[in-house]
Amino acid sequence: MSAIKPSIPKGTRDFLPEKMYKRQQVIGTIKDTFEKYGYAPLETPSIEKLKVLSGKYGDEGEKLLFKVLKRGTGLENLLKEENEFVVSEYDQLVEEALRYDLTVPLSRVVAMYQNELTMPFKRYQIQPVWRADRPQKGRYREFYQCDIDTVGTESMLADAESLAIVDEILRKLGFTKFVIRLNNRKLLNGILEYSEISGDQSVSAMIAIDKMDKIGLDGVRKELEGRSISAQSISKLLSVMEFTGTSEETFSFLSKTCGANVSVQTGISELDEIANYTESLGMPQDSYKIDLYLVRGLGYYTGPIYESVVEEPKIGSLTGGGRYDKLIGMFSGNDIPATGTAFGIERIIDVMEQLEMFEDIKTKTKVLVTIFDGDSIADSLAFAAELRKAGIATECFPEAVKMKKQLSYTNKKGIPFCILIGPDEIAKHEVSVKSMDSGEQTTLSRSDAVSFLLKNSMG
Amino acid sequence: MSAIKPSIPKGTRDFLPEKMYKRQQVIGTIKDTFEKYGYAPLETPSIEKLKVLSGKYGDEGEKLLFKVLKRGTGLENLLKEENEFVVSEYDQLVEEALRYDLTVPLSRVVAMYQNELTMPFKRYQIQPVWRADRPQKGRYREFYQCDIDTVGTESMLADAESLAIVDEILRKLGFTKFVIRLNNRKLLNGILEYSEISGDQSVSAMIAIDKMDKIGLDGVRKELEGRSISAQSISKLLSVMEFTGTSEETFSFLSKTCGANVSVQTGISELDEIANYTESLGMPQDSYKIDLYLVRGLGYYTGPIYESVVEEPKIGSLTGGGRYDKLIGMFSGNDIPATGTAFGIERIIDVMEQLEMFEDIKTKTKVLVTIFDGDSIADSLAFAAELRKAGIATECFPEAVKMKKQLSYTNKKGIPFCILIGPDEIAKHEVSVKSMDSGEQTTLSRSDAVSFLLKNSMG
Repeated sequence: MSAIKPSIPKGTRDFLPEKMYKRQQVIGTIKDTFEKYGYAPLETPSIEKLKVLSGKYGDEGEKLLFKVLKRGTGLENLLKEENEFVVSEYDQLVEEALRYDLTVPLSRVVAMYQNELTMPFKRYQIQPVWRADRPQKGRYREFYQCDIDTVGTESMLADAESLAIVDEILRKLGFTKFVIRLNNRKLLNGILEYSEISGDQSVSAMIAIDKMDKIGLDGVRKELEGRSISAQSISKLLSVMEFTGTSEETFSFLSKTCGANVSVQTGISELDEIANYTESLGMPQDSYKIDLYLVRGLGYYTGPIYESVVEEPKIGSLTGGGRYDKLIGMFSGNDIPATGTAFGIERIIDVMEQLEMFEDIKTKTKVLVTIFDGDSIADSLAFAAELRKAGIATECFPEAVKMKKQLSYTNKKGIPFCILIGPDEIAKHEVSVKSMDSGEQTTLSRSDAVSFLLKNSMG
Repeated sequence: MSAIKPSIPKGTRDFLPEKMYKRQQVIGTIKDTFEKYGYAPLETPSIEKLKVLSGKYGDEGEKLLFKVLKRGTGLENLLKEENEFVVSEYDQLVEEALRYDLTVPLSRVVAMYQNELTMPFKRYQIQPVWRADRPQKGRYREFYQCDIDTVGTESMLADAESLAIVDEILRKLGFTKFVIRLNNRKLLNGILEYSEISGDQSVSAMIAIDKMDKIGLDGVRKELEGRSISAQSISKLLSVMEFTGTSEETFSFLSKTCGANVSVQTGISELDEIANYTESLGMPQDSYKIDLYLVRGLGYYTGPIYESVVEEPKIGSLTGGGRYDKLIGMFSGNDIPATGTAFGIERIIDVMEQLEMFEDIKTKTKVLVTIFDGDSIADSLAFAAELRKAGIATECFPEAVKMKKQLSYTNKKGIPFCILIGPDEIAKHEVSVKSMDSGEQTTLSRSDAVSFLLKNSMG
């Protein structure tokens, strides 16, 4: 038989059961916490119209959209009949693309269903997104995002809640050494204004600042020089940026040096509010630090921005978000404020695997019922049904093959108990329960066996 | 502000929270049952290589594949510079497509990871699939499938288990008037052989038989005549097909009339085994009926086939599946037997809505903590955190607006309790608990309030 060589597209992955149990564990923890904070579920289509996605992710992001070929172009048929197909307009072939994130679809949803939604609208969304990025360690072309957003309020309470949720979830997953970097776009803009950097140059300067992590302060200085920003501006900018201290100290330094700038003032006061609210919410105050170098690439942020990073391994951010008070207006015509955060669960899982934070689950099946021979099948099936009725996850081996093979399957799968029902057991209306761990085997009445397994296989 | 008119692609849907709660309810029931029978989770990429999908779904299916535009074609850039882009080979533009079902991806997975998987491999998979079908009532372009399959055994036990699971899940969801139509491709092939219908004509005959539901026996006869099948063959075929009776009677009739045919013999014996096994598993025997007219479109079935239908409303099948012992071999080179079933959860949900089978859930939030004024925010936040710590899903209203507005939000969202914390409550370290249902308001110590809400908001 000549077979099709099975393979999958670059940057995509199959998740076999053991991997899936880990994903379900992480997603379950995230979802439960979202619901505990009152967020409600939303799902949107994987395919969005290109005009909805266009102009939201910057030039770089735009290139990464996975586009879907329009149906009914006749492309395939024409190529069968003729040698070529001439395309003269892009939208002759493409009108739709796979979603790139969950924030733009949310904004579209809010604009479309404004009258049905009660504001503030708190939603969570856990779905895959697609980016035609160059695949590399920790970066995939299809990956899940887990987002929460609060729409319809300018209150910093919503931003503080995002931070508290990030903190709570990372701790619940077992992370101890992480920090949430916190900054504010208004503050950044104010500092640039104070440094007399404006227009295109401010975008340039932001790109340079964003690289601090990778190239250090000297690197940033060189970048700024390379981007033809005046020496005076660079000096003013860096004299502010290079300050280090606690949140309190940073706020007070900024007020003193550039607090005359309205954007700086607003930025500080927003961050200060967030500090107070997170404290009231019981979030450990060493979980976050003010980081003036945090920019976050996406163009749509307008206020507080935040991302969480682990000390080890160096893998980028685990979560990231911020306030975007202007994005929904691009769809609705009227501005509707919004803020929220995304959990990069692929990275979270990668890090948890690397740091061996998972408890390995090989199977959720608790009991395997063997089949002794053709005559005993009915009894085995009936007992399996009895166990399932009691809520015990039970498999039946599907063939009356040698017992050794059935036991070896049970072992390989990591199923803790197996049941043997042969002629003796059938005659006495009993079953033999074998613990795969200890090898111990006990013969019990059927109802005692159910009770025993219920007690020993739960939790 | 000039806004982008927000809309979504034809045949796709947004699921707002109330709809999502229904979907979660159905998917949760399905997933729990799958796990109780020992199926393990699998996820595969949304995008598959075109060569993996091609040739699996028949000509009609092939046309419905959503194709993904290849990256790096230069199409977009070239069109900016020149007026046209000439395509001379189809795979110049397209190499990948969105998955069409979950069975072909499973087959690819089994072939790719043969050495890692312990056979029999029982997996469940709950993911969306895409078909560029003409959208209509109950038919979407993006929809979830929920599949179970058992790979690596020819045993009819696996097929019987599929039937038992369909029966159990439909009952758990609240369906009472449904029936699982059961047939066998070997039996059908045997009946066609017996009727001296072969080659292309047997495909033609199957298509005609499949229409029984819609056009009745006379219609089928006309179809067969129209497809130039000989009068003698039609008469032989219909003399078998038109038999009606219980499973037992049908088996005995078939054995008598065409039991000399080996395929008929095997088909009957497989169905008979399934009947016995489902009975042992405790499945009500009136849940299924042998239906010789069941064909199921897909080309890859080789043995038992089954689908479940409800009497009302007429909406097609809710679940469908069967045995496909040759499909995996198309990838692996060696045949690996497999069988399984898919739950059409979109139709299931549509029917459940139509029959009003859902308990409406508006929100999962149990308590809303109001904000009295700027001075009380810290107390409100701290108490919200206390409630969440106790496991109670709690929202905090994010703004210190008029109490009337906060109560109206609580009401509209269907949140059962709200908490008021004003200066009096703060002074006494108390909170007021208001039941939105009865309007009753009680002032309690904070710890009593937590206990009260824990008792009254759970379950």
